[in-house]
Amino acid sequence: MTRVGIINVTGYAGSELARILHNHPDVDLVSVTGRSAAGKQLSEVYPHLREASMTITPEIEESVDLVFSALPHAASAEVLKSFIDDGVPAVDISADFRLKDLPTYESWYKVDHPCPNYIETAVYGVPELHRSEIKQTKLVANPGCFPTGTVLALAPAVQAGIVESHVISDCKSGVSGAGRSAKLEYGFSELNDNFSAYALSGHRHEPEMSQELSALSSDGDVNVTFVPHLAPMTRGILGTHYAKLSKDVSQADVDAIYRDFYADEPFAHVVPTPPSTKQTWGSNDCLIYATIKEDAGTLVAVSALDNLGKGAASAGVQNMNVMLGFEETAGLEALPVYP
Amino acid sequence: MTRVGIINVTGYAGSELARILHNHPDVDLVSVTGRSAAGKQLSEVYPHLREASMTITPEIEESVDLVFSALPHAASAEVLKSFIDDGVPAVDISADFRLKDLPTYESWYKVDHPCPNYIETAVYGVPELHRSEIKQTKLVANPGCFPTGTVLALAPAVQAGIVESHVISDCKSGVSGAGRSAKLEYGFSELNDNFSAYALSGHRHEPEMSQELSALSSDGDVNVTFVPHLAPMTRGILGTHYAKLSKDVSQADVDAIYRDFYADEPFAHVVPTPPSTKQTWGSNDCLIYATIKEDAGTLVAVSALDNLGKGAASAGVQNMNVMLGFEETAGLEALPVYP
Amino acid sequence: MTRVGIINVTGYAGSELARILHNHPDVDLVSVTGRSAAGKQLSEVYPHLREASMTITPEIEESVDLVFSALPHAASAEVLKSFIDDGVPAVDISADFRLKDLPTYESWYKVDHPCPNYIETAVYGVPELHRSEIKQTKLVANPGCFPTGTVLALAPAVQAGIVESHVISDCKSGVSGAGRSAKLEYGFSELNDNFSAYALSGHRHEPEMSQELSALSSDGDVNVTFVPHLAPMTRGILGTHYAKLSKDVSQADVDAIYRDFYADEPFAHVVPTPPSTKQTWGSNDCLIYATIKEDAGTLVAVSALDNLGKGAASAGVQNMNVMLGFEETAGLEALPVYP
Amino acid sequence: MTRVGIINVTGYAGSELARILHNHPDVDLVSVTGRSAAGKQLSEVYPHLREASMTITPEIEESVDLVFSALPHAASAEVLKSFIDDGVPAVDISADFRLKDLPTYESWYKVDHPCPNYIETAVYGVPELHRSEIKQTKLVANPGCFPTGTVLALAPAVQAGIVESHVISDCKSGVSGAGRSAKLEYGFSELNDNFSAYALSGHRHEPEMSQELSALSSDGDVNVTFVPHLAPMTRGILGTHYAKLSKDVSQADVDAIYRDFYADEPFAHVVPTPPSTKQTWGSNDCLIYATIKEDAGTLVAVSALDNLGKGAASAGVQNMNVMLGFEETAGLEALPVYP
Repeated sequence: MTRVGIINVTGYAGSELARILHNHPDVDLVSVTGRSAAGKQLSEVYPHLREASMTITPEIEESVDLVFSALPHAASAEVLKSFIDDGVPAVDISADFRLKDLPTYESWYKVDHPCPNYIETAVYGVPELHRSEIKQTKLVANPGCFPTGTVLALAPAVQAGIVESHVISDCKSGVSGAGRSAKLEYGFSELNDNFSAYALSGHRHEPEMSQELSALSSDGDVNVTFVPHLAPMTRGILGTHYAKLSKDVSQADVDAIYRDFYADEPFAHVVPTPPSTKQTWGSNDCLIYATIKEDAGTLVAVSALDNLGKGAASAGVQNMNVMLGFEETAGLEALPVYP
Repeated sequence: MTRVGIINVTGYAGSELARILHNHPDVDLVSVTGRSAAGKQLSEVYPHLREASMTITPEIEESVDLVFSALPHAASAEVLKSFIDDGVPAVDISADFRLKDLPTYESWYKVDHPCPNYIETAVYGVPELHRSEIKQTKLVANPGCFPTGTVLALAPAVQAGIVESHVISDCKSGVSGAGRSAKLEYGFSELNDNFSAYALSGHRHEPEMSQELSALSSDGDVNVTFVPHLAPMTRGILGTHYAKLSKDVSQADVDAIYRDFYADEPFAHVVPTPPSTKQTWGSNDCLIYATIKEDAGTLVAVSALDNLGKGAASAGVQNMNVMLGFEETAGLEALPVYP
Repeated sequence: MTRVGIINVTGYAGSELARILHNHPDVDLVSVTGRSAAGKQLSEVYPHLREASMTITPEIEESVDLVFSALPHAASAEVLKSFIDDGVPAVDISADFRLKDLPTYESWYKVDHPCPNYIETAVYGVPELHRSEIKQTKLVANPGCFPTGTVLALAPAVQAGIVESHVISDCKSGVSGAGRSAKLEYGFSELNDNFSAYALSGHRHEPEMSQELSALSSDGDVNVTFVPHLAPMTRGILGTHYAKLSKDVSQADVDAIYRDFYADEPFAHVVPTPPSTKQTWGSNDCLIYATIKEDAGTLVAVSALDNLGKGAASAGVQNMNVMLGFEETAGLEALPVYP
Repeated sequence: MTRVGIINVTGYAGSELARILHNHPDVDLVSVTGRSAAGKQLSEVYPHLREASMTITPEIEESVDLVFSALPHAASAEVLKSFIDDGVPAVDISADFRLKDLPTYESWYKVDHPCPNYIETAVYGVPELHRSEIKQTKLVANPGCFPTGTVLALAPAVQAGIVESHVISDCKSGVSGAGRSAKLEYGFSELNDNFSAYALSGHRHEPEMSQELSALSSDGDVNVTFVPHLAPMTRGILGTHYAKLSKDVSQADVDAIYRDFYADEPFAHVVPTPPSTKQTWGSNDCLIYATIKEDAGTLVAVSALDNLGKGAASAGVQNMNVMLGFEETAGLEALPVYP
């Protein structure tokens, strides 16, 4: 069994990793860390993890064969550095190694990068786009929750060259995307039965979207207008994406482009009816639906995923599976929980 | 006191009309109708209306000075016809008199219009755009819940000629917009903690949006790509609207255009921070926020309203107030209920 | 117009007071206070109060004819002291003047009472029980949200002497009852789609319940086993109360006892079917339903109210109306908002 | 692999069975039935079951080694009859074989029992109480969702003889307990942010509770006053149970009684802090917490479970595991999904 650790297990992404890894057939979760919760049992912080409980320590205490970091950006690279130096494979849930352009990273995150030299070796963790590179790297930058859905929704169209280079990403997220934090603005009474747009002046996930879609485009950079929204639900991201068609394509053409692009994918599914977020609850699925508005010459592509699943933790497990040569679906077989 | 009746009080728009009219200083609610509930007390169907209770009858039983119809389309025009013939002022909450172009109505609603001759005299009930016409008509077509927010969000920009003629309206609605209906798809277990897009092949509110925005444009028709979404909340519509800028305008220009457009409006408010739907709960407010994405040359305009308030019932009361020469805010003074 | 102030307008009870008082026909809200928000506009903290906005100050800045305090316990009595000394009528939303027994207060709240000499003059603010005393006092102790529903549900039975002296109060509250606080445990992701009991070792509202029910009993003290629960909703308390019947009474007897007890009450209503919390949303109503389980010789009495309405702010306004001789329903006419 | 079928897969309990059985290591799901959905793919009705999809047929089409029925009562016994006659082991999710007393069944369910001769051979499917009998039967009556939590919460105390024979069960259920039905009363807009008690004149789960608790009592029958409530959440039942202590026991005594009773149970857990329903989401766990209110001489016992899990489908799988001699936890290892 492969020995695995989770740095910062106490956030929602960290706890979701612990939940999934507990039943993974190829790994043993041997060490979990947390700062304020150090010394506590995992089940004290998360009673649902009773069966997976272990002592939370300040640092990874066992030697591990792979490490996940669910720390915030900057803190994550700082802690991962020594693991990477030691050749321990790492999956970084944070944003630290996602952006290939250092100035872009530093201007959006307003920090100096703790180990910029590793940016180049990191692979952006969307197996649907970078599977072969993930197999060969020791450092995967797990993508942001919003970019995962946006990139998967638009990648087939951008690669096929059927849309113009300005796209709109209107994403609606459940509140768990904001993390496990004691902030008034994420209080139940503030958010229940309420809906709003935020980050209208720009969101850090925008450059990730542009980077990945631009890399697929043969027509130059893709500019993304991204507006995230907060929906009164716990999990789930629904992204609705709009792009002007640059070619005269039919719905049948679009269907074929999308179907072919994801033909062999275990988790990215082109679906026959508009998906809803709850169809992915607790799973690693990303559901994609693309349609043409003919009168407007516009592609509308919708994606649905669980922000803590394919948007964070289970995507990390999928990346680990690819890196370590496990069955790609190992530990990720549980079907979504509905209703 | 003006004597008022509500046709089909048993839906959510009808019951909301009854709630508001109960405390209106200038009117008496004298007759309410309902089919399946005929013979019941209003408080049996809606216990919260205990204080406003009266017997539900199959037809309007008292002579009335103004009538609201909250019937579905086609049925509404059919029943309103005799009131209009008799010169009784009417506010139609249904879609029957919204679209000025008969073939457009008949192709979207797939019915023959019961009284097409009244289409021309009907005024589209957005007082912010058509106040003077509403004052002079006896038939107001209350707008759809989605068009209200979309038209108010984009009207200043379209009239000012600063955006191109293709706009995107990405709207998120609470479930009460689907009406009071016993359908599995609107069941709590199906929708709670769930989010989806619908009507991707086209929604009946799209031609309303185009009609009203085109009328404001000096550059020809405005084409609207409209995608509605269902959010796990009871009330509220948040609309996020995207339009390419056609002129080189600054944020300050946009601020001035919006501020001036709604300067004297009692219910349409340009707000300094992105609004949330719950800020309008139970009220007639529509909150509007417009910003420029400079790198993409795109205007993003957000609007928030209560779909049963400014999106239906309270908008109907505002229209009545304008028609009958009451204070425009009469009966609509209660502040939104939050949290 | 009577000049009124609100101390600590920034919590949910305070903001709800501001919302209601804004449309009260007999009062002007002239001063509102808040600590961390001092200097801000009320509309910055609560955008839904745009129409009622005014500057939040650290202290009451205008001379007032009546003051509401929505401060936490101890802090409230401390600040109210000078108003009471000056003869300014006060409605205290906090717990400071509810309990007539000083040691009980000090043991449950674990503080020294800042002005114990005023406890005796304070009247417990349930007009349905203490209307004549409220008319004659200058200090009303607004009851706790849970005790209001429990006392109103059981008062008729206790006064009629038909139940034994041990009663069970199983209450389910919306999250706004926890106040406007930045605590992880009240976060949306923690509470949504979740339900739990709390305070199983005892809750501060228990002695209030016992005090008020005991005062109605001719058989000695009433012991209350009170278990509060947190429900995934914003507003509302549903209380289910169980008491062994001590006499052989029929359902018809119970119906008569309850109907007579609340016969002339404007806000406490005995209803013909089990009430739901949302039937009281935003209003001052308390709905009561009592039934007998014959095989168990047990009375089950259910009450529903809005914890921020009859459970806090609107109850305070009702108390003010009684104190100052206004129409008891003044400012409280708006019907509940549903759905 | 054991071949298993599900009769009426289209309800929530049926679909949850399909979800769990898809990953069960010892069984193959070979046939699923449904009436109105016959001919459809399972994934058309439940998109989240894409990976488990198969054609829904009107009758079980393959020979099966065990059958689950998730039909409504009466219909279930009718269809199961031939399987039982043929010696096929069956788990009946319906109420048909739960009550040992035929007149009790017929008076509560108001039907003639389709095959009363099998009542005696059926075992009430709470493995924590009837494991050895379940091992030896071919017909398990899966318990009702409410009785599971109530019986597990009170069984230790009743068996230990520390409580009087009248107990109160105040249960709060998520809406999925009402099934997958197109009824207005279960609509999102009706139930969201709303809370109510129902079935105040009696609920069919009451006699199950009495039957099972009475069987554990050495002091005669246990009378249960049961009041169910509908909470605005999808899954979960929290039961709060009250019983007068009949002996002078300490909290330590109670702790020991409960700890010992469930010492070796894989799914019934005595927990150190009051549980919340979401800690069991999607799992077969039942969490139990018991405490004494000393001043009232009352035991308060709280239980939390997932009504579709331990309250229905996963309990059925646990029962199958026991019947067929599989590992009792087989297929039930997935941890609860939180948040």
